[in-house]
Amino acid sequence: MNKKVIIYLMGWILNIEAVFMLLPCITALIYKEPSGYWFLAVMAVCGGIGIIFTRKKPENMVFFAKEGFVSVALSWIVLSFFGAMPFYLSGEIPRFEDAMFEVISGFTTTGSSILTDVESLSQCMIMWRSFTHWIGGMGVLVFILSLLPLAGGYNMYIMKAESPGPSVGKLVPRVRSTAKILYTIYLFMTVLQIILLLIGGMPLFDSLAISFGTAGTGGFGIKNSSMAFYDSYYLQGVVTVFMILFGINFNVYHLLLTRHPKEAFRCEEARAYLGIIAASVLFITFNIRGSFGSLFSAFHHAAFQVASIITTTGYSTVDFNLWPEFSKGILVALMFIGACAGSTGGGFKVSRVVILLKAVKKELGSLIHPRSVKVLKLDGKPIEHSVLRSINTFLGAYIVIFTFSVLIVSLDNFDFATNFTAVAATFNNIGPGLAGAGPLENFSKFSALSKYVMMFDMLAGRLEVFPLLLIFAPSTWKNS
Amino acid sequence: MNKKVIIYLMGWILNIEAVFMLLPCITALIYKEPSGYWFLAVMAVCGGIGIIFTRKKPENMVFFAKEGFVSVALSWIVLSFFGAMPFYLSGEIPRFEDAMFEVISGFTTTGSSILTDVESLSQCMIMWRSFTHWIGGMGVLVFILSLLPLAGGYNMYIMKAESPGPSVGKLVPRVRSTAKILYTIYLFMTVLQIILLLIGGMPLFDSLAISFGTAGTGGFGIKNSSMAFYDSYYLQGVVTVFMILFGINFNVYHLLLTRHPKEAFRCEEARAYLGIIAASVLFITFNIRGSFGSLFSAFHHAAFQVASIITTTGYSTVDFNLWPEFSKGILVALMFIGACAGSTGGGFKVSRVVILLKAVKKELGSLIHPRSVKVLKLDGKPIEHSVLRSINTFLGAYIVIFTFSVLIVSLDNFDFATNFTAVAATFNNIGPGLAGAGPLENFSKFSALSKYVMMFDMLAGRLEVFPLLLIFAPSTWKNS
Repeated sequence: MNKKVIIYLMGWILNIEAVFMLLPCITALIYKEPSGYWFLAVMAVCGGIGIIFTRKKPENMVFFAKEGFVSVALSWIVLSFFGAMPFYLSGEIPRFEDAMFEVISGFTTTGSSILTDVESLSQCMIMWRSFTHWIGGMGVLVFILSLLPLAGGYNMYIMKAESPGPSVGKLVPRVRSTAKILYTIYLFMTVLQIILLLIGGMPLFDSLAISFGTAGTGGFGIKNSSMAFYDSYYLQGVVTVFMILFGINFNVYHLLLTRHPKEAFRCEEARAYLGIIAASVLFITFNIRGSFGSLFSAFHHAAFQVASIITTTGYSTVDFNLWPEFSKGILVALMFIGACAGSTGGGFKVSRVVILLKAVKKELGSLIHPRSVKVLKLDGKPIEHSVLRSINTFLGAYIVIFTFSVLIVSLDNFDFATNFTAVAATFNNIGPGLAGAGPLENFSKFSALSKYVMMFDMLAGRLEVFPLLLIFAPSTWKNS
Repeated sequence: MNKKVIIYLMGWILNIEAVFMLLPCITALIYKEPSGYWFLAVMAVCGGIGIIFTRKKPENMVFFAKEGFVSVALSWIVLSFFGAMPFYLSGEIPRFEDAMFEVISGFTTTGSSILTDVESLSQCMIMWRSFTHWIGGMGVLVFILSLLPLAGGYNMYIMKAESPGPSVGKLVPRVRSTAKILYTIYLFMTVLQIILLLIGGMPLFDSLAISFGTAGTGGFGIKNSSMAFYDSYYLQGVVTVFMILFGINFNVYHLLLTRHPKEAFRCEEARAYLGIIAASVLFITFNIRGSFGSLFSAFHHAAFQVASIITTTGYSTVDFNLWPEFSKGILVALMFIGACAGSTGGGFKVSRVVILLKAVKKELGSLIHPRSVKVLKLDGKPIEHSVLRSINTFLGAYIVIFTFSVLIVSLDNFDFATNFTAVAATFNNIGPGLAGAGPLENFSKFSALSKYVMMFDMLAGRLEVFPLLLIFAPSTWKNS
């Protein structure tokens, strides 16, 4: 284990976190809030430690898969710990586990909250809370890759560990350029959403916070009633469209930008993703049409909620916990499917579902014709054996963690729908679940133990299980 | 597709069903019940068609995997259709879908019932209902294999399709002998249980019916209060032990019989199975100790319920729907794990869980040491690649069917726990679920559509998904 490189990278994480905290500082300055001093204090500490750690570049930069996974997992824990400090030290979130829960929920773009009254926070805290979604959406180490001129092939390991989805398609041969392209698209789309929300009459503060939450597919509301506060078809419609856009594989945008529209439209994952959205909206609209004044209104809220859940954002315009069981069932299924790989969304990922279904179909075919040999393909390219194998083991690990999490959370003795969907909502980085974890409820009711389990789940969900499991495996820390 | 062979086999199925109906006929004779005439009538029809179909052995006995799967799936449908007739024609179960549900629940050893008052049925109907568990437990086509002197290697395909578990270990080189050994062990253990129950003072009728339900891991109660009626630690204890015994891989008994105790005790699946039972009983006993007079009483009921659920039997001694959420959560997890492969139990099977966990562990190891090559082993033997692949596609198909089933059942608009556990209980062939599908409830409340979905799930669960899916695939019926 090359610990020096890991410490060096952690130093960069802290430096960047200090820089990111400028935004809440500016917010505090504008709103003349004394809580802003806490951000200054934490910035000083982060920056101080960061500068010490990054003062000298380690001589031995040899870096393997193991170091990549460990760096990614540790960086998220470090980031969350310091990110929680302003909330905790200022006393605006008095309990340590609650502050950690809130910030992990932010960075992992989950959006589950322990706050019973969001609007009582100071503006700089609300801004930082929403900003964590934007920071976490694309991954911080990927961000570092786009800035640091670090040589060597090792950065691919970091990108693999931090980017959601079964396999990272390098957009261009060099990882650093790939990271830069991703961040450029990300930034551009965020700015576009901010402008469209401003045109609709939303205040600048709200436009920024809501767009950060959409871009990262996070979903922290800045009002107690989440997006229901903005009672405008236009504003909610803009958010619906951008949620769907941020859930699409960023490869597609890159292909469009580089004038390869044919390849972009052939992307099987994006097509399946849009197909699932269309079918779900159709069924739910039909199912809930009685509770809304017009068919259009039912369609509008169905579309918003489906987009919010499948992209694992978690905003809400209505209390979908009151919808019929069939609609709720569709939403629960969408919770697990999740968005596209290579997007900012969480969940199991559409491409994994598509590949799994193809594997099932192939197995059925080979039962009828045992001697036929077929190759699984995605976007016309054969799927590597190792990809299929890792999807399957991912599913296995996913089910095991999910089961044990539900069991521990059920010690709090809430009903089955609450326990099941609370874990589903945190593990898949969505935010709200159903029943006691529904959109008008919050996560403060759970015990500290349950909260720590859900923090683990949020991180495991964001980092796709394995990096987080690895830092608990003793053999990771052995020198070999 | 060799349709002649399939028709010939269906003929044998009908012949055997006619013979099996002798038991309810005798019961009707003893209890002087006029409903017995319906059994005579159905016997005559089954026997008549059966004799016509089996009159001439087809000349071309060539038989492939496809024919094997189709025969197995069709035979279960034929068996269920004629098995339901006495209930339906006698009017004791007036609706056709209810009679079909009840009999499919019997043959698939599920034990879910649409009856609100079991005790109002005539004795011969109750006996037939419990006897279907025993018939379905080991599989009817396997039974035919043990009787018919059919040459050719094709019978392995039938055994593969009908026997639960990822792979059939042929106990001895010839399939026919294997089937005979399995049935001998099965019969012997059933008789042993009947004797032990008689010793405990249970009436003969009840001992037979309860033992049939235990042996097939079915779980139809013959009293409205299921096993709570027999308020005796001895009787309930005997059933607990035999439920666990019938959930063990029958390979183990064969190894013990042939004096290979070392190999028997080395069976990883059986060890994992017993380990899961022990841990679950321990946790539940601790969790429910407050609701029972003594720790022993809590242990007794915890053990009974754990054995009943993991073996997918479904008897109950208490209303576990009232237990704390943690205990209920463990039971729900056990619903999915299921019993050992090569036993009469349903569910996902312990060996599949064990193999999946080993695959996850291997994947973690290969992330740390990418160049290491490890081989997955079970019982010291390497696991074939195709076995692992089929487990994974099985899991995929399983999740898809489960999700769509829950969605359709949720159209009835019962709560999430009811919908989820009703499908879990039928798909895994257990019987009772939680909430509205709990042990003191029944399945009559569901709509006809939901009942048909659950009938499909029960058959798909018993036949392990693929045979049933194949008969819906158009390419199965193409001549090729």
